[in-house]
Amino acid sequence: MPLLWSGYSLLYLEGQERAYTQDLGQAGSCLKIFSTMPFSYCNSASCKYASRNDKSYWLTTNRPVPMMPVAGGEIHQYISRCVVCEAPGPAVALHSQDSSVPSCPSGWQGLWIGYSFLMHTGSGDEGGGQSLTSPGSCLKDFRTQPFVECQGPRGTCHYFANIYSFWLTRVSYPEELGEAPPTQTLKAADQQRDRTSRCHVCMKR
Amino acid sequence: MPLLWSGYSLLYLEGQERAYTQDLGQAGSCLKIFSTMPFSYCNSASCKYASRNDKSYWLTTNRPVPMMPVAGGEIHQYISRCVVCEAPGPAVALHSQDSSVPSCPSGWQGLWIGYSFLMHTGSGDEGGGQSLTSPGSCLKDFRTQPFVECQGPRGTCHYFANIYSFWLTRVSYPEELGEAPPTQTLKAADQQRDRTSRCHVCMKR
Amino acid sequence: MPLLWSGYSLLYLEGQERAYTQDLGQAGSCLKIFSTMPFSYCNSASCKYASRNDKSYWLTTNRPVPMMPVAGGEIHQYISRCVVCEAPGPAVALHSQDSSVPSCPSGWQGLWIGYSFLMHTGSGDEGGGQSLTSPGSCLKDFRTQPFVECQGPRGTCHYFANIYSFWLTRVSYPEELGEAPPTQTLKAADQQRDRTSRCHVCMKR
Amino acid sequence: MPLLWSGYSLLYLEGQERAYTQDLGQAGSCLKIFSTMPFSYCNSASCKYASRNDKSYWLTTNRPVPMMPVAGGEIHQYISRCVVCEAPGPAVALHSQDSSVPSCPSGWQGLWIGYSFLMHTGSGDEGGGQSLTSPGSCLKDFRTQPFVECQGPRGTCHYFANIYSFWLTRVSYPEELGEAPPTQTLKAADQQRDRTSRCHVCMKR
Amino acid sequence: MPLLWSGYSLLYLEGQERAYTQDLGQAGSCLKIFSTMPFSYCNSASCKYASRNDKSYWLTTNRPVPMMPVAGGEIHQYISRCVVCEAPGPAVALHSQDSSVPSCPSGWQGLWIGYSFLMHTGSGDEGGGQSLTSPGSCLKDFRTQPFVECQGPRGTCHYFANIYSFWLTRVSYPEELGEAPPTQTLKAADQQRDRTSRCHVCMKR
Amino acid sequence: MPLLWSGYSLLYLEGQERAYTQDLGQAGSCLKIFSTMPFSYCNSASCKYASRNDKSYWLTTNRPVPMMPVAGGEIHQYISRCVVCEAPGPAVALHSQDSSVPSCPSGWQGLWIGYSFLMHTGSGDEGGGQSLTSPGSCLKDFRTQPFVECQGPRGTCHYFANIYSFWLTRVSYPEELGEAPPTQTLKAADQQRDRTSRCHVCMKR
Repeated sequence: MPLLWSGYSLLYLEGQERAYTQDLGQAGSCLKIFSTMPFSYCNSASCKYASRNDKSYWLTTNRPVPMMPVAGGEIHQYISRCVVCEAPGPAVALHSQDSSVPSCPSGWQGLWIGYSFLMHTGSGDEGGGQSLTSPGSCLKDFRTQPFVECQGPRGTCHYFANIYSFWLTRVSYPEELGEAPPTQTLKAADQQRDRTSRCHVCMKR
Repeated sequence: MPLLWSGYSLLYLEGQERAYTQDLGQAGSCLKIFSTMPFSYCNSASCKYASRNDKSYWLTTNRPVPMMPVAGGEIHQYISRCVVCEAPGPAVALHSQDSSVPSCPSGWQGLWIGYSFLMHTGSGDEGGGQSLTSPGSCLKDFRTQPFVECQGPRGTCHYFANIYSFWLTRVSYPEELGEAPPTQTLKAADQQRDRTSRCHVCMKR
Repeated sequence: MPLLWSGYSLLYLEGQERAYTQDLGQAGSCLKIFSTMPFSYCNSASCKYASRNDKSYWLTTNRPVPMMPVAGGEIHQYISRCVVCEAPGPAVALHSQDSSVPSCPSGWQGLWIGYSFLMHTGSGDEGGGQSLTSPGSCLKDFRTQPFVECQGPRGTCHYFANIYSFWLTRVSYPEELGEAPPTQTLKAADQQRDRTSRCHVCMKR
Repeated sequence: MPLLWSGYSLLYLEGQERAYTQDLGQAGSCLKIFSTMPFSYCNSASCKYASRNDKSYWLTTNRPVPMMPVAGGEIHQYISRCVVCEAPGPAVALHSQDSSVPSCPSGWQGLWIGYSFLMHTGSGDEGGGQSLTSPGSCLKDFRTQPFVECQGPRGTCHYFANIYSFWLTRVSYPEELGEAPPTQTLKAADQQRDRTSRCHVCMKR
Repeated sequence: MPLLWSGYSLLYLEGQERAYTQDLGQAGSCLKIFSTMPFSYCNSASCKYASRNDKSYWLTTNRPVPMMPVAGGEIHQYISRCVVCEAPGPAVALHSQDSSVPSCPSGWQGLWIGYSFLMHTGSGDEGGGQSLTSPGSCLKDFRTQPFVECQGPRGTCHYFANIYSFWLTRVSYPEELGEAPPTQTLKAADQQRDRTSRCHVCMKR
Repeated sequence: MPLLWSGYSLLYLEGQERAYTQDLGQAGSCLKIFSTMPFSYCNSASCKYASRNDKSYWLTTNRPVPMMPVAGGEIHQYISRCVVCEAPGPAVALHSQDSSVPSCPSGWQGLWIGYSFLMHTGSGDEGGGQSLTSPGSCLKDFRTQPFVECQGPRGTCHYFANIYSFWLTRVSYPEELGEAPPTQTLKAADQQRDRTSRCHVCMKR
């Protein structure tokens, strides 16, 4: 598939405590240039840049998470890279809601398999989600913190404990019948992965 | 059109008092398996399942609404079923903003007619909407409560009085000129339907 | 391209202090009939129209902004017009994040160039954004207040100082390296335009 | 006790979708003059009055609730009256959490008995509560809708179905032991009253 | 009255996009030491200080408002000073809702006269209000921006256009009868002051 | 001081995702009977009890925090007890903003010393704070999680990682001058305590 551009995987930008999440399956989530502060805001009187506490959120690489805020050139290694290609047909995600990987329908070609990513929250009460149709709802790897928060005007990025990710789970038989599901807290990475629904991104040939 | 899968009509999932609404015109709103609690959430320390007050919202069937919460196998009869098919071309919704059904453009084929569904709210201040381009903004039938709230960890579903649905209306001539519209409260189902804009879902041939 | 319909550019409708923003690059943001109050809301008991403080937000024309609320037939001249056409292929927006206009990839045809519009807020804590893939994220002209708020049940429209628009900016070299960006307040229209990222809407041939 | 002034019982004022609730046990909740729109708001540029969708909420009398919005001189009969007196000592509310009325401690004199009012919500996600120490948490009568919403700039008042009141309940023995309480929906006024905690307002002699 | 301490007039502290407003009539709003960042926050894992975008809001002096953010030692001259004294009796605010200053009841002594301050909003959807009983609801001077926002971790303070103050107004006769009040926008300082309710803080002798 | 009653230390009750926090320095925060679900809510149609996801939050004892939700009779040992006494004079909190304990003014008697507790957040975007004048802003012991969340209708209580407490800190000299404070993350309990402002609750003799 012909390459259109490469860039950095933007999840969302937050200004004035408002956010709008990009669809990770669309080209708009791949910004050519990385900056902790890639936007300004305006009212009738003026435009302001880096004057308040605006934030940006980015998908991250698999590098071990540092304890302290990261600044300057150090940041780039933690930000996930992306490419935008021209696809011959539409691509959609299929979710199994169990531990098997769903097959692509006939006439469709598999692009990648992954884990069913539903939604996220960042600071305050902002957050967003992914359309379960979009390839952006099928992340190749499962991690409890797949993205990082950057404090725009300070030029730093950091992982916070009150950042949450939400994932579709495997549905077992009693729950399928509508029974009250048992409460669970999973701390082992294996168990967490095991509990998560699998998905397949397929492209129309 | 070839069938890809059948399932249950998911409107949205709410976790930690955050929600993300699915587009009812896309495949992601049709989950293969029904569960009141089909997801978990994670932070850096752990993943939790059914441990707090998470919710799911589903389109409902036309069965009369029960007074008390419904649990277990009883729930399935109230949840709307769906199928995902592979369409030969894109489908869009057209809204008339009056009582006539809009015609499909030439070269487009009608799939169904309905009522113009705009937006909804559930518990707290969460909710969402539909793109007015999407077939999901054109529901075949008009009902004041087209969806139900399920309390995930308890395995029950219930209709609440503070669940709202929002619909495009017919615009009469004085309002079209920008006059202040008269306040109205409609209690009869006939009047409610009459006041609502009609729509048509059309598919490119 | 064959014309499907013409109308008025709707940004979003807000009811019960909840809002859902339309994608300005899709047909659903072009309503055939203008009304300050084009919707009603329902719960199990009844449907209400124009009974509370609902609002609608619309893209505006370039006419100078009046100081006082506008009512009746006066409103139409401030509301941006739109047309919906049947396009032979998909259209996407490309954003440069600098002052040059990005070129369309080979095999794609330019439709218009503009400024990179990200997000907006209206009254209270409601607002929304545009997918950066959508043509709706590339507005032909840069204005600090590209839209207006209409108070539905009163039939008036007005510009408020706490309505904000958010725009992608040019990223200069130090910020690209992750340095803390300097705070800026821009009051001159030229400077504001200069600081804003350019974009190009391209259509697959 | 010497009378300081008489007035109308204000619960709260909401502007720009923000609200601040008055303590019903303090003099500030008794406004001398009733108006649906008793305030304005300012930013650095200007002050605005009645220009947006501001609201006021007032305690109501026992008159039967009308179906349609009330306007003009008709409103006064639905708004609860109040007097502010100079008390010789502090007054506090005592709550029993069962069906008996708590006795005043020795050296304290009973002023009135009532029902334990905790909290309320109005439109959107605004609302507020009462300190359980304050006489304002002990309303003489139990009603499911003890207050009304007035749409300031329109000069009308109306009861909405998504206005909620919250009340302390009687705690029965199993719940006291921490057992999961059974779900209940009470429609009869007698049952509703029965389930509600009683209170006594006492004044230090 | 004996002086207990002097300090700086704190309006509220905002952390994690949550705020709690101090009563300006109580000692807790007078902090001995000024700092843009006087607090930290903790969860089970750790405490963090100055790591995110926390803010503090302070009453200001009458100095002309600077255009750009103020930093370092420059800030102190804009922050209102306060003293906490031991009063012989309780002090309350009386509001006239017209242009006359209310008289203190007999046996009460006037402390100061002012303008009726109701409520404020800062960034995002946070804000708070004053009890109308409290002396904090009667500010000696009327200003459209009586407080300033400090960005804690950056050590700067700045006036923003979306900071609002809310004031009780004079109620004229038609509004008192419940008529819909006319919309007004007041730009002249004289007119703004004229429209605002007067108040008197009185102390029991 | 004569005992009025003893009970359990309520921080706040949350219903329909709205909360109202009690002042921990007032009698209303000491409920005679403990229950995970001590309230119901009503609209015009009916009152509901334990039907949705309501919550209660309580101050806790020093017992080590369990990993899993606690239910039934097990809960009581984690909930802080309280007594309400009739005090001969008013009590206020004094905060030092450094590591020394502030002295009570002459004529006032010390009741207890502690740490300066400002504010808290629970689930979603709800939370609240304490007046810094109130004895409730001076907790005897410093703990990063001084309160617990109970899921009302399920009858369980649990510590969640996104529950936050906010504390006044010691202000060092550079910050006092308005310099940007250095970011800190404190994991050791000693350091956390050290960084927190001290307070003294004093009662007028």
